[in-house]
Amino acid sequence: MPLTIPSPIAWATDHGIRILDQTRLPQEERYLELHTVEEVAEAIRTLRVRGAPLIGIAAAMGVAVSAGQRGSGEAGKNSVEGVREACHILGATRPTAVNLQWALDRMRRRADLAAMRNEELYSALREEANAIWEEDRRMCDRIGELGAALLPSGATVCTVCNAGALATGGIGTALAPIYVQHQAGGEPHVIVPETRPLLQGSRLTAWELSRAGVPVTLIADAMIASRLRLGDVRAVFVGADRIAANGDVANKIGTYGLALAARAHGIPFYVAAPTSTIDAASSSGAAIPIEQRAPAEVTGWLGQPSAPPGVGVWNPAFDVTPAELVTAIITDRGIVPPKDVARVID
Amino acid sequence: MPLTIPSPIAWATDHGIRILDQTRLPQEERYLELHTVEEVAEAIRTLRVRGAPLIGIAAAMGVAVSAGQRGSGEAGKNSVEGVREACHILGATRPTAVNLQWALDRMRRRADLAAMRNEELYSALREEANAIWEEDRRMCDRIGELGAALLPSGATVCTVCNAGALATGGIGTALAPIYVQHQAGGEPHVIVPETRPLLQGSRLTAWELSRAGVPVTLIADAMIASRLRLGDVRAVFVGADRIAANGDVANKIGTYGLALAARAHGIPFYVAAPTSTIDAASSSGAAIPIEQRAPAEVTGWLGQPSAPPGVGVWNPAFDVTPAELVTAIITDRGIVPPKDVARVID
Repeated sequence: MPLTIPSPIAWATDHGIRILDQTRLPQEERYLELHTVEEVAEAIRTLRVRGAPLIGIAAAMGVAVSAGQRGSGEAGKNSVEGVREACHILGATRPTAVNLQWALDRMRRRADLAAMRNEELYSALREEANAIWEEDRRMCDRIGELGAALLPSGATVCTVCNAGALATGGIGTALAPIYVQHQAGGEPHVIVPETRPLLQGSRLTAWELSRAGVPVTLIADAMIASRLRLGDVRAVFVGADRIAANGDVANKIGTYGLALAARAHGIPFYVAAPTSTIDAASSSGAAIPIEQRAPAEVTGWLGQPSAPPGVGVWNPAFDVTPAELVTAIITDRGIVPPKDVARVID
Repeated sequence: MPLTIPSPIAWATDHGIRILDQTRLPQEERYLELHTVEEVAEAIRTLRVRGAPLIGIAAAMGVAVSAGQRGSGEAGKNSVEGVREACHILGATRPTAVNLQWALDRMRRRADLAAMRNEELYSALREEANAIWEEDRRMCDRIGELGAALLPSGATVCTVCNAGALATGGIGTALAPIYVQHQAGGEPHVIVPETRPLLQGSRLTAWELSRAGVPVTLIADAMIASRLRLGDVRAVFVGADRIAANGDVANKIGTYGLALAARAHGIPFYVAAPTSTIDAASSSGAAIPIEQRAPAEVTGWLGQPSAPPGVGVWNPAFDVTPAELVTAIITDRGIVPPKDVARVID
């Protein structure tokens, strides 16, 4: 049976796109139509659309939107300039996710090709964005099949943040093995930490798993190590925003602490990500730029302050888990030890 | 110079006590007068008064309040019965902190002695509560002196939750070494995780350190491991709610994960606690009861839901850090390796 999770992205009328505003979940299932590249960039920057694979898809669709905006004329020099400008705006939204740059590179190349071939630009770019989306959907399915084979039936697993259907064009990365097992009647159970400061665990992962009928237990981030100590968690599955050539993994802040706790309790720690997340140009995690976000995310929530005014804050959106804490990386091209991850994209 | 932190507890008129309502911080510095044992129990249960040493002091004062309630007659059989009933009510408020039971035991014994000696009960109990309070104040000072000697000047240290002036009758336990160094001009800097679900780190520790002029950096709980990895944190200081005979330490949920991260980065992990926190009757951490709190603490904050309705929740208030992760325990009777902690109270 199909999963009953709404798609986080779709094409809309008038060369626009429609997104599920993830900042309003779980209270409200609200959709927004975006008709300019600036609107798409704003949606990515403010995390209305988030998750490394989905950011790539949304940016690709945003590039098509920018061509649609300019009218559906032929692909000339001006139009290709417009695409470059759109890529520049979209590329500046989030520094850590490498899928964003990867998708924009593809869109730029497609625009160049369209100009060379004198193709209609909007159609060409829309087709390329659809290809990226469809490939992501298939990558999710493949990751799900490979990952599910690592899971005993009825297993309790732990994840962090949201690397599910809401973060991708398909059934997710870290959550894909769980959905595959769930659909096969395997009855998995997921432990998810709320994932402060932006609560993607409670707002998004708990929401989409509940929607799909997968039992979920929500904990505070500080409870992870104690929960793993109980002894029933069989595996940890997390996504990735960028994987360096040496197998170091940048992912949502908190992933590194989760990896340390998994290691302390002998629990396998799997990173699930499409090959587009692997960045051969980053030799190690030290080369990955880590986005710092606004202090207000940590000093309060939904406008309610929780800290005294003026307090110092450190708010990185991501951390780096060293390769030696990663049991294996589950990609759409197979399961590999972290040290061999660069070979997957050779 | 004295620290400019308001006292979290005081005697009030009409045999009552006055408390700083810690659930209202940092937005509001509100004081409540409590005149019945039920009011004191409610304040402890709802964390208006919290922190293992302060719970002990508040409960002792609450026992005196109960005697004051009954009139200031001589200590007869009925009055001692009343004390036993008050101890029963107060003892049921929080299961993990052993200081609570320790303080109530002292109050019960003092009531028995008063009855034997035919002393005026309220005065005897008030005197005993004052003795507990004053001893705690001195224990804090001693812990501060011992702990400060472990800290290089200008050190960055990490803590969790609140084991400061707001948690004790003095300058705190985990924060005492920091205040001692600060008052000596040593310029320490404190990293504190917000400590979900009840945010004692952001609401209380950031507040009292800011009040005292100590620089503080607030992080989300999930950022601890990454923050320790930066390499500048010289020590971790945490409090304790109960220390088992083998040196296992029950403290705020999240302490165990912090200890794992400290170990991974070679950072000394110190537990600071008065000897009243050591429980020889608990042979190991497995014998310590862990309070489970309401799911609503994890599924939202200040009445704002952050998770879909009906989601499963696991919400232990404390965790147990095994003795092998503890560098040393700083008590008012000296610094001891965790395995020797029971000897301190021999």
